[in-house]
Amino acid sequence: MAIQQRAERTRASILRAAARVFDSQGYERASLARIGREAEVTTGALTFHFETKADLAEGVRGQAREVTGQAIRIADGAGESAVRKLVAVTHELTLLFATDEVARAGERLARELGSGEGIASECPWRREVARLVRSAAEEGTLRSGADATAVAALITYVVTGVELATRRPGTPAGEPWLGETGALDGSAPERLERIWRLILPALES
Amino acid sequence: MAIQQRAERTRASILRAAARVFDSQGYERASLARIGREAEVTTGALTFHFETKADLAEGVRGQAREVTGQAIRIADGAGESAVRKLVAVTHELTLLFATDEVARAGERLARELGSGEGIASECPWRREVARLVRSAAEEGTLRSGADATAVAALITYVVTGVELATRRPGTPAGEPWLGETGALDGSAPERLERIWRLILPALES
Repeated sequence: MAIQQRAERTRASILRAAARVFDSQGYERASLARIGREAEVTTGALTFHFETKADLAEGVRGQAREVTGQAIRIADGAGESAVRKLVAVTHELTLLFATDEVARAGERLARELGSGEGIASECPWRREVARLVRSAAEEGTLRSGADATAVAALITYVVTGVELATRRPGTPAGEPWLGETGALDGSAPERLERIWRLILPALES
Repeated sequence: MAIQQRAERTRASILRAAARVFDSQGYERASLARIGREAEVTTGALTFHFETKADLAEGVRGQAREVTGQAIRIADGAGESAVRKLVAVTHELTLLFATDEVARAGERLARELGSGEGIASECPWRREVARLVRSAAEEGTLRSGADATAVAALITYVVTGVELATRRPGTPAGEPWLGETGALDGSAPERLERIWRLILPALES
């Protein structure tokens, strides 16, 4: 039992290290050697738990699905309208993608590897966003006549846009937010809040 | 002169091949050998024009800036309001990112390499979007009270969101557009059009 607990701790610490490396370097540049060093385990221990880099990526993506799933359940539990739940879900996701290396790594890996073969292609948060938009249309809190599919796509573009923006802190030229003289450079949640203030009136009935 | 023309043709065909490889494989996986094969040139000819992969990436990004710059000038030339120019610019960009490998490669490289050191950090289309939003605010075609910085960011998120969506045709789970039963899967310009129909009323005065 003690051995099993130790093995689980090692596995968890390998996955955390892998998430850090995938998040900062991307899948292709990430090496097993680097991940082993970050996790402070031997190559033997690393390959005992994960034989290949693809296995590690799949492990990190599985954990990312768990943490994003938890964040969505928390926001979804709030007893409000589906539109307000949608706003809450995007705030939870944005906070997660700004602060949680596993969730960030999951997003980066999904972009770089796609659904791939063998790698589970699930992207639960996009599906949840689409589901909440449909609920909002059914319960009548989505503005009548609004194109629900376009609303769902728009919201996922915004969440991803804010997430990508947190990856280039040093590139003012690429960021209209920073191009304004004297403008706040804006944390991820602040950016999201300002976007919602802009678009919510067009989406909510 | 004939020699110089031939050299320029070779250089152009190397850059086109590099764009194709960077666009489909990303920077890290792209190899000089593969690019040489795609361009049907010898390694000697390839390295005569571009010594390193970083040089090739910089060459492709330079060309991408040119083609996106042209697209923006075309859309910007239409004698309409700044808001309508903005819509036209996003349509030109989306069409370009859906069809032009150089422009697509430029976007992918910008995401993967960031502004880097030595690589020109310019991202003219985002700057142009920000400029047009400011013009719209000045001429009064932007809805009064709209947060111009947020508008610029929102528009760049949408253009990038549509571009990224064209990169995962095989992943319905990740795409709310495809999750709807019977919904159009939507070309990039159609997606953009549906998003604009949703948000333009909130942005235009």
